[in-house]
Amino acid sequence: MVRLKGFQKLTTVDDAVRMFFSKLQAKPLKPVIIPLHSALDRVLAEDIIAGEDLPRFDRSAVDGYAVKAEDVIGASQFKPKTLQVTDKDMIVHKQSRQLWTGNPIPKGANAVVMLENVRRIEDKIEVWVSVTPGENVSKRGEDLSKGDIAVKAGTRLKPHHMGLVGALGKAEVTVVERPKVAILATGNELVKVGSKLRENQVFEVNRLVLSMLCCEMGAEPLDLGIAKDDVDEISARLKLGIERADAVITSGGTSVGGADLVPEAANNIGKPGVIVHGVAMRPGMPTALAVVRGKPIVILPGNPVAAMIGFEVFCRPLICRLLGLKLELRPTAQAKMNRRIATTLGRKNFVRVYVFQQNGEFVAEPISARGSSMISTMTKANGYVVVPENREGLEEGEHVSVQLFDTVRVVDEDV
Amino acid sequence: MVRLKGFQKLTTVDDAVRMFFSKLQAKPLKPVIIPLHSALDRVLAEDIIAGEDLPRFDRSAVDGYAVKAEDVIGASQFKPKTLQVTDKDMIVHKQSRQLWTGNPIPKGANAVVMLENVRRIEDKIEVWVSVTPGENVSKRGEDLSKGDIAVKAGTRLKPHHMGLVGALGKAEVTVVERPKVAILATGNELVKVGSKLRENQVFEVNRLVLSMLCCEMGAEPLDLGIAKDDVDEISARLKLGIERADAVITSGGTSVGGADLVPEAANNIGKPGVIVHGVAMRPGMPTALAVVRGKPIVILPGNPVAAMIGFEVFCRPLICRLLGLKLELRPTAQAKMNRRIATTLGRKNFVRVYVFQQNGEFVAEPISARGSSMISTMTKANGYVVVPENREGLEEGEHVSVQLFDTVRVVDEDV
Repeated sequence: MVRLKGFQKLTTVDDAVRMFFSKLQAKPLKPVIIPLHSALDRVLAEDIIAGEDLPRFDRSAVDGYAVKAEDVIGASQFKPKTLQVTDKDMIVHKQSRQLWTGNPIPKGANAVVMLENVRRIEDKIEVWVSVTPGENVSKRGEDLSKGDIAVKAGTRLKPHHMGLVGALGKAEVTVVERPKVAILATGNELVKVGSKLRENQVFEVNRLVLSMLCCEMGAEPLDLGIAKDDVDEISARLKLGIERADAVITSGGTSVGGADLVPEAANNIGKPGVIVHGVAMRPGMPTALAVVRGKPIVILPGNPVAAMIGFEVFCRPLICRLLGLKLELRPTAQAKMNRRIATTLGRKNFVRVYVFQQNGEFVAEPISARGSSMISTMTKANGYVVVPENREGLEEGEHVSVQLFDTVRVVDEDV
Repeated sequence: MVRLKGFQKLTTVDDAVRMFFSKLQAKPLKPVIIPLHSALDRVLAEDIIAGEDLPRFDRSAVDGYAVKAEDVIGASQFKPKTLQVTDKDMIVHKQSRQLWTGNPIPKGANAVVMLENVRRIEDKIEVWVSVTPGENVSKRGEDLSKGDIAVKAGTRLKPHHMGLVGALGKAEVTVVERPKVAILATGNELVKVGSKLRENQVFEVNRLVLSMLCCEMGAEPLDLGIAKDDVDEISARLKLGIERADAVITSGGTSVGGADLVPEAANNIGKPGVIVHGVAMRPGMPTALAVVRGKPIVILPGNPVAAMIGFEVFCRPLICRLLGLKLELRPTAQAKMNRRIATTLGRKNFVRVYVFQQNGEFVAEPISARGSSMISTMTKANGYVVVPENREGLEEGEHVSVQLFDTVRVVDEDV
């Protein structure tokens, strides 16, 4: 067996995550109060408690007529019961009152007959059905009782949560501050997108991709620019990142035993420095994880695919911690592999797949890639499968769990 | 059978969608050019074509040494081959050059030996493995060839697409304009969230929820406020909406044969007016669909749950059309019902469920709701199942497709 230089040994993904988080002060960030209407996708930092019953009063669940249920016992289309219509706030024996959905139930009434089960004749109605007491009535407190937790702290606010918070009359909510994530790219060959390329230069895209992945999670990216392959320059920018942000992500400048400029820079700027360097994963083996003054630095390889996968594996749980969220997985599809794919034993492999729905079944097609650096393998894929270290591949027909990072199309053979 | 007043007959959901779209000028909106870094989740209005090969030159896929493969035939740890190290842009017989991932392959070289398979001794290396020509080389054009479509028009831009666009050097993209959607609530009982409630009043939340659902899809909500139950006031606001926005959504003021103020107002302001009124769905039966001067008005019931479901069924495909997107479904989970639930024959039922993952399996628990108006049934649920018109319910143990509007948690019994 060839000796692996540079990395004495590779750390497993699970160990790397565990070691990293044990050195971190990754507590949820501080709470901030914001208007409810700006809170979409923010993480709630308080339990929302119902200050009163919801609904606040017994109300009609339908359009119809409030009645005393006992007045319409045995009613049918052939034996309708006739009731007087009133517009008073109280009804008595053989009376009814017209209501629209949401209107309060008048005193004396205990049920609502739906509009389509009634014929109005001037100031009277013919009722064609019987109703049970409570029928078509939303009882006070049926939705929430005073003191109930409406939405729990740690919930990422979606439109339906916001509706419930609003229904309780709250126009402001306390949410977790957005984590600030500083992002640095390193490499002499890199130039900014939009500039003119000289020979042997390439456009730098990892800052953009990593920033957008941060935005998707509700973190705020800070740009640390592109650093040359120079330890001092990298150290200075990392230091700035640590001071200004809650976490730093870098890409490039980490390798197998070679130009480990970013790990070196991380060790330069403070303790404890690099915690893990070299992870048993594919792609992403040169990944390093550092902690400086309690703040995390995730050092990803420069290869864009490895950087994206590294974000999923290390930055996603990190940002969740900063937000006080349980690990938030991407949507998962159970799919069937449509061909075999080989993976590397002893590494956690992240196989890009394209999932589509065919005849009601989800099918995963592996996106083959000689070079893991091929960014087009990520745009051809819409998800990835995690293959554990003790497997040498996935079989044709095997059912796998796919983490989706894009939508799934229906590709029916019959259509 | 009781005669259904108000609605001569209910239109099926599929017919309603078809009739509505056939009257609409729902073409994609006009294209706009924006900076790439602001394009997350926007819909591409142009094909992104590779202007040149990607990579632009043969480059190393690993950290290592560029070699002539023929110089290391038969190399092993026991019979290493020794090569001279040069820093020239061209290597000759028995020479090598050190490269980092992404560096161009020097002339004369045809493969790269990985760093860990080499021992450096001053200006020489011992190579311990043989390589085949092309090994560890990313060939020019391997990712994309000049003229290839990198990302297709109609793609919603995710971080990985943006990375590929950036890698091609494009700092700007042409995307579809954000659809403007004007949102109106109607009802005398409604007051703004944050104000003081009087007796029998309720906080209005549908504008908030519908706005947030628009935002999630990348549409821009415009607020038309809360209108009283008055046809003239509603007509005036609808007119404003039609003038300023690409679509209008309303909630409330539509019922079964009763206070059909919004449909009436829609008919008042222009032709063809109401296309469908009364849909065979549950919740959401009083939904109406109107078109005025080519612009769509989706008239949803005031009940918040029906309004949210109505958005999914009618507004989601509408906004997709305005964006030039194929119908974009929510993430779907295949889950097993953990108990029976009854639904109404002859209606398309939208059953709210809570999906969780238990022992590797997705389980769907129906969220029972006497009142479909219970907004808490939406916050307790994380998805819904569509039950077709010819079914009377879902069986315990039945496998269903769940449209997810929130995340799925793992609730393992064993843990």
